[in-house]
Amino acid sequence: MTALDERPAAGSTPTTTVSVAGYLATRLRQLGVDHLFGVPGDFNLDLLDGLADGGPAWVGSPNELGAGYAADAYARVRGLGVVVTTYGVGELSVINALAGAYAEDVPLVQVVGAPRRAAVQAGALVHHTLADGEFEHFSRAAAEVTMAAETLTADRAAEQIDAVLLAAVTHRKPGYLAVPQDLALAEIDAAPLAQRLVPVSDPAALAVFEEQLTATLAQAQRPVLLVGQLVPRFGLAAELADLAARHGVAVVTQVSARGVLDADHPCSAGDYAGTMLGGPAIDVVAGADVVVHVGTVLTAELTGFGSHRRPDAGTPFLAAATAGFGDEPGGRVLLPDALAALDRALAGRVGPRFVRPAASTPAPVPTTDGELTQAQLWHALAEQLPAGTALLADTGTAWFGALDLPLPAGTTLSGQPIWSSIGYALPAVLGQGMADAHRRPVLVIGDGAAQMTVQELSTIAARGLTPVVLLIDNAGYTIERALQSPRAAYNDVAAWDWGMLLAGFTGGRAAYAEATTGAELTAALEAAFADTGRMHVVRAVLDADDTPPMIDALARLATAAKG
Amino acid sequence: MTALDERPAAGSTPTTTVSVAGYLATRLRQLGVDHLFGVPGDFNLDLLDGLADGGPAWVGSPNELGAGYAADAYARVRGLGVVVTTYGVGELSVINALAGAYAEDVPLVQVVGAPRRAAVQAGALVHHTLADGEFEHFSRAAAEVTMAAETLTADRAAEQIDAVLLAAVTHRKPGYLAVPQDLALAEIDAAPLAQRLVPVSDPAALAVFEEQLTATLAQAQRPVLLVGQLVPRFGLAAELADLAARHGVAVVTQVSARGVLDADHPCSAGDYAGTMLGGPAIDVVAGADVVVHVGTVLTAELTGFGSHRRPDAGTPFLAAATAGFGDEPGGRVLLPDALAALDRALAGRVGPRFVRPAASTPAPVPTTDGELTQAQLWHALAEQLPAGTALLADTGTAWFGALDLPLPAGTTLSGQPIWSSIGYALPAVLGQGMADAHRRPVLVIGDGAAQMTVQELSTIAARGLTPVVLLIDNAGYTIERALQSPRAAYNDVAAWDWGMLLAGFTGGRAAYAEATTGAELTAALEAAFADTGRMHVVRAVLDADDTPPMIDALARLATAAKG
Repeated sequence: MTALDERPAAGSTPTTTVSVAGYLATRLRQLGVDHLFGVPGDFNLDLLDGLADGGPAWVGSPNELGAGYAADAYARVRGLGVVVTTYGVGELSVINALAGAYAEDVPLVQVVGAPRRAAVQAGALVHHTLADGEFEHFSRAAAEVTMAAETLTADRAAEQIDAVLLAAVTHRKPGYLAVPQDLALAEIDAAPLAQRLVPVSDPAALAVFEEQLTATLAQAQRPVLLVGQLVPRFGLAAELADLAARHGVAVVTQVSARGVLDADHPCSAGDYAGTMLGGPAIDVVAGADVVVHVGTVLTAELTGFGSHRRPDAGTPFLAAATAGFGDEPGGRVLLPDALAALDRALAGRVGPRFVRPAASTPAPVPTTDGELTQAQLWHALAEQLPAGTALLADTGTAWFGALDLPLPAGTTLSGQPIWSSIGYALPAVLGQGMADAHRRPVLVIGDGAAQMTVQELSTIAARGLTPVVLLIDNAGYTIERALQSPRAAYNDVAAWDWGMLLAGFTGGRAAYAEATTGAELTAALEAAFADTGRMHVVRAVLDADDTPPMIDALARLATAAKG
Repeated sequence: MTALDERPAAGSTPTTTVSVAGYLATRLRQLGVDHLFGVPGDFNLDLLDGLADGGPAWVGSPNELGAGYAADAYARVRGLGVVVTTYGVGELSVINALAGAYAEDVPLVQVVGAPRRAAVQAGALVHHTLADGEFEHFSRAAAEVTMAAETLTADRAAEQIDAVLLAAVTHRKPGYLAVPQDLALAEIDAAPLAQRLVPVSDPAALAVFEEQLTATLAQAQRPVLLVGQLVPRFGLAAELADLAARHGVAVVTQVSARGVLDADHPCSAGDYAGTMLGGPAIDVVAGADVVVHVGTVLTAELTGFGSHRRPDAGTPFLAAATAGFGDEPGGRVLLPDALAALDRALAGRVGPRFVRPAASTPAPVPTTDGELTQAQLWHALAEQLPAGTALLADTGTAWFGALDLPLPAGTTLSGQPIWSSIGYALPAVLGQGMADAHRRPVLVIGDGAAQMTVQELSTIAARGLTPVVLLIDNAGYTIERALQSPRAAYNDVAAWDWGMLLAGFTGGRAAYAEATTGAELTAALEAAFADTGRMHVVRAVLDADDTPPMIDALARLATAAKG
């Protein structure tokens, strides 16, 4: 399945041989990976020493799950992210991140330092195993949640590395590479490195798809592009905005692609998730004669629990590495090529240009000196959020509140709308910040989520990153309180002194403020956004039962969907 | 495979039906489980509500891995421990703990709140899945690292619960139970609850084993019992001490069973791990005419990298649920029954009683006001460690230092000598403390390990536990520095202000001290051991390259074993 083009890699000077670790390092550099996240362990020390020799820079984390989440966020920006762990104890701690990357279409590759081949062949009882002489338990577990998983062999190491990396970047899915300890520094043929790994479409399949798409759109009067998470994953937001503007075609976004199009783009019709969201998108989609799915995923939550417009046999689907119609997956067409085909197909369309419906202005929420509410919090954030922000929202009220938040120009929203593992977004700030020094990360996260992965605050500070963190402290899992058993003790978490913790983790490199009223929150956010030179954490104290309005819609639709 | 005896469960009054959650709760109570560890999630809320009704008490943790480690430690004391998580996002975060329980022979059962059966049957795309319509990825991953894994069905729920719990307590291995959300509160027949789950041996197999064992030991002049981790896992330490004393038979312990026999027991010949450890055990084992393996595991690390005495075809092996000779696993004989058979077999022995060799006294390590060293640290701890301590040591220099530490009466050592996942032992303090209110936990842990799972300090304090924590702060992973690349940046961790963090996590409920000299450490430990009413954390600042003497032996043997 390896697809190569013939261009020599820029700047590479192939030598006769290279170590396995060196081969991997070069491939990662070629694919835009300048940083590795992870935790060392005795089975991966040779690997790390080999990677350190000219490879991506090391970013160590307190634990593997944090490193995995950071690498996930890095992959979303760079097109590939890597987490390095040791065997067994390390790799299993990051499998949640791998599965999340699968669900969210993220090219996250885990590289594992594995035991020596002689130990494996002998069925030796060594540490970091189940002491049963069986060494494939963990690679089989990884295979359940990855697109490609390989344990390197002496004669096929390069081919295996290339296959896993290519699968990850082609499908925007996670991969897994186990490197036996005694193979990490073994020398292999360096010649394949002269050719870059570039996924390619099947020209015949592309031609067939384009022909059908052109026919479908030729007479379309009111086409709509429904844009999903694969568009940002492939870095195609600018292409999409340009395409829409040139052809005057309406665009609605799934919430997993919020911010792909600026809200004031002439073709933006807002976010669409059936009746779970308000706004113009519902009518625009309902009135469309063709809805083109561009990199969507149709989960219950992303489709408003089935309240969205259902595709039919003629609906075009542009996915990561296929493009087809209706239930037919179609041939091997990569999303960038499919988008180019869409561009050409729209050029032949004869229908009218899309005209945005007049936007309604949301009623202002007065800032008060009374107890802070979720409504005031989101209003205050909307008032102050700078343009060009990399906004991250963790699962829970933070995510659902962010769905109603107007995003200024150049601002994207990132999270886990499908996998929904709380604690993801805090380490994601590390990956986002390391991947893109030019955009300031802003994180909104609940206290229950932040407790999961809090130690990554130390890495964020140690790396000199300067995010703004808005901590929604409502003493536990308020999203669950809203769904069921609001007084159940299991939804409460231990109270932490967040100011002390921040100081302890960051050595005083971060600013801290608390807000119990709307006015205090406004002031704290003003200070945080004005001071771009350091990390700011603002703890917003909220009632345990206060939720953003979106939660009501969610709970109502989710309950109805249980049937 | 369900083996039941006919005794009615004490105090239970069977009703006609019971909910699935209620059935599970009763079974857990019958098996000694009074606390559940875990994290809630929307798929397990019905399960948690059902378990809360008369079931074990809830102990919530900041994240799943911490909860899993706590439940592991609880299981080691109580004979069964349970961690409850949600599907996907929750269960994958705890799989490292499950695998560790497999390696270390711990009956840890994970209970997962899973999606509704209708969603599974429909292949629905819902949150906490890979969005591929496939719901068995995670249960297959769990099956890789557990003895028994079941997803409950409507018609077999009770049978499945019983099978998994019985497998866990029989084999001292982990299990996995997934409870579909819509099945948690479904009513099932309560009648099976009238019979307790009790694993039983095969009487014929037991008779065969006892006959052979009696013949083997009849003329033994110098028999030795080599005791491994299954003895403490089955709670058989007192039986073993009594047996050894009555029959005058020498006992050596693997380091995974340190403290099973008090050091001043007349038959104790110390710890045995080939030439990795010194002391009398090497000669005692070398001179034995029969070495009886009582619940041992023969990994590279536990056998001094193969430098131990190898078993032969006539060597008796008492395992968790088999007893045999040499490589033959033997029939189904549970360890308690096998130990009773050993007791009877030894009664017929005609050889002399074991006489302990004179113990050598280790050279005292002078306490100084110079920079604190590992040697001083372990000496200071040896001087002050109270009798009856539940000592926990995390992987790294903490573990290897603890192997040389003389243990006072009634003091046990617990850790992960096989799985060796750093960060285990801090949450284990929570489980140990909840399982046994009468023994004070003392934790020795390195800073790299503590960074993994630090947030569990908050749960320990919130539950009113009062451990002493000796934090070895050497700015990173010193065990790895000792093995390879001592100056590699990947072995450094970010500096934390541990005093601030402790205050932030515990709300001032814990005392904190720092020691940079031997005298300071002695004073800090004195204060900590004298004040039994609250948690004490003592941070010992050590040089990054300073290691306990055992590390030298480890590094030498490990390097030689690489061959």
